[in-house]
Amino acid sequence: RTLRIGLIPGDGIGKEVIPAGRRLLEALPSSLNLKFEFVDLKAGFETFEQTGAALPDKTVEILKTECDGALFGAVSSPSTAVKGYSSPIVALRKRLDLYANVRPVKSVMTAKNPIDMVIVRENTEDLYVKEEKTFDGPDGKVAEAIKRISYKASFRIAKMAGEIALRRQKIRDSGAPSIHKSPMVTVTHKSNVLSQTDGLFRATAREALADPRFKTVDVEEQIVDSMVYKLFRQPETYDVIVAPNLYGDILSDGAAALVGSLGLVPSANVGEGFAIGEPCHGSAPDIMGKNIANPIATLRSVALMLEFMDEEAAAAKIYAAVDGNLEEGKLLSPDLGGSATTTQVLEDILGRL
Amino acid sequence: RTLRIGLIPGDGIGKEVIPAGRRLLEALPSSLNLKFEFVDLKAGFETFEQTGAALPDKTVEILKTECDGALFGAVSSPSTAVKGYSSPIVALRKRLDLYANVRPVKSVMTAKNPIDMVIVRENTEDLYVKEEKTFDGPDGKVAEAIKRISYKASFRIAKMAGEIALRRQKIRDSGAPSIHKSPMVTVTHKSNVLSQTDGLFRATAREALADPRFKTVDVEEQIVDSMVYKLFRQPETYDVIVAPNLYGDILSDGAAALVGSLGLVPSANVGEGFAIGEPCHGSAPDIMGKNIANPIATLRSVALMLEFMDEEAAAAKIYAAVDGNLEEGKLLSPDLGGSATTTQVLEDILGRL
Ligand SMILES: CC(C)[C@H](C(=O)O)[C@@H](O)C(=O)O
Ligand SMILES: CC(C)[C@H](C(=O)O)[C@@H](O)C(=O)O
Repeated sequence: RTLRIGLIPGDGIGKEVIPAGRRLLEALPSSLNLKFEFVDLKAGFETFEQTGAALPDKTVEILKTECDGALFGAVSSPSTAVKGYSSPIVALRKRLDLYANVRPVKSVMTAKNPIDMVIVRENTEDLYVKEEKTFDGPDGKVAEAIKRISYKASFRIAKMAGEIALRRQKIRDSGAPSIHKSPMVTVTHKSNVLSQTDGLFRATAREALADPRFKTVDVEEQIVDSMVYKLFRQPETYDVIVAPNLYGDILSDGAAALVGSLGLVPSANVGEGFAIGEPCHGSAPDIMGKNIANPIATLRSVALMLEFMDEEAAAAKIYAAVDGNLEEGKLLSPDLGGSATTTQVLEDILGRL
Repeated sequence: RTLRIGLIPGDGIGKEVIPAGRRLLEALPSSLNLKFEFVDLKAGFETFEQTGAALPDKTVEILKTECDGALFGAVSSPSTAVKGYSSPIVALRKRLDLYANVRPVKSVMTAKNPIDMVIVRENTEDLYVKEEKTFDGPDGKVAEAIKRISYKASFRIAKMAGEIALRRQKIRDSGAPSIHKSPMVTVTHKSNVLSQTDGLFRATAREALADPRFKTVDVEEQIVDSMVYKLFRQPETYDVIVAPNLYGDILSDGAAALVGSLGLVPSANVGEGFAIGEPCHGSAPDIMGKNIANPIATLRSVALMLEFMDEEAAAAKIYAAVDGNLEEGKLLSPDLGGSATTTQVLEDILGRL
């Protein structure tokens, strides 16, 4: 099988980690019978400065018509609002209807208090519809934004959370070591304040997860503030967490803190038949150009993208190679307290494939 | 000076901790020259079931006309939406224009990694305006909520954050042990996505804090997701964090996790010349009636209320007595791993006044 992968490095360390992701795909053992072709695509703040568009139409077009999947690096946010600029990753998620943002946060099993959860974040609506307006009130300016929650988007994201919970259980049943015994989905919301919007998310998620297919899945709920509290007090409890867009954004950064570095945490933006892998860290201008960015978030994002292309064997090989590097703990990048370069970490992991 | 204090226990353990707060006020040493009168007031889910109103007009009226301050316990949220019921504490904050929710999160100084921060949460707007509607879309129901951010509310909350930063520095300058050397305010927002609403919050906070009065205060910014990450990775960095309502709600629960229990964290809802102390924990129906709720969040809320009434000497006595109990660590409630009852913890602290 030949897969054509769009590469969108974006800004900052995106330009260092996306090439690492490409090298990983090229280095996969031939026994997997996978071939890759690559197409370089533009997006980001630099692209905006050069072309006037942060997400050129051509990028979207090529992803839609030519690619089987893609890798996205990171984009810089300007430090003050720049007219006409808005985040290309948010736009990309919407234009390709990549309705789920899947963010597994897992420590190695040899960690003192191992954790193993995945945050399934709705990726198309909530405050991210970015419908805002500003007007003059009696006491100065007032701005309003719309938070939109729909039955459709809530249903499909909860369904995906249920499916991911079942898939994780299947992997456990096949003997993979894990801290969980049975599948659980935690529905996160703030319906005690937002009875209509978050109330709709909550009721719809309950409805989707009441399907008999999910009868083995425990469904529980957490109010978002209490979820953040519990995330830090008893993270080992959580298996799959499903949340509207903004809460999912916040929770996944919180969960990343639990494993020691955002540099370890991958994500995939997933739609019908298409997935874009994306490390959870940002463009990190402070360390850019130094070859010290941790490539692991990207390498795991490559694996996650492959999982959503049903290439589970290839994904498993990558996860195991990364775990091998972390468990040995000899070649770690500075965010993990080591002094290895991006290239050294990458080579070490390639050697373990 | 005689102060008249409204007591609103609400539901669940609110009924156990608010009486502890009253006993604390009654036990303050007479050298402070303070007298207290109390008036019992109703609010909460039980009140709603009895009277049809979660926040009776009479409660608001008496607070406005008779009281110098108040203590609020907690309210239960029904597990599914109940027609006509909405949170009385959210309503109370708005009706009394208690525009700031001040939440200090502090470990004892003898802790291994001491932290000492205060979250200053805007308390009247953002998604808490609760303007929601639901309609039928092409693919099922759609619900929308308004997130409102105003210049006026953003300015006054940032100004209060600056003032609190200066006040904390003054206390440090007078010799109080602390982990901070100079005052800092961190402005939290998500203006990379919400350029108008959170953009207005950010720009206005910057403007308010640019006042020459605050020239000794370091002002920095964090995007809310990254703020949660940093809160867990380097909490000792933070002095004063100012945030719109919802982010403040989430951040304060996150910060509470750092000190080991929500049962330790106080808050004050503060307006012009009026403050309501409120423990950050909820009504905790699972432990209610067992006399094991940690009273410390309420006792510290009493102190915080007194600070906003300019009774700093009384507040300092209470903080010291609580710290004494925690540093000794012999009489701790179950949330802290101990086995002392609410009454035992209270008595121990009263004995240290
Ligand atoms: C950069 C920003 C727009 C983005 C988001 O909020 O989704 C980022 O925080 C993420 O989590 O991918
Ligand atoms: C109970 C709820 C409405 C409330 C809030 O969201 O403000 C609580 O979480 C708090 O922090 O006081």
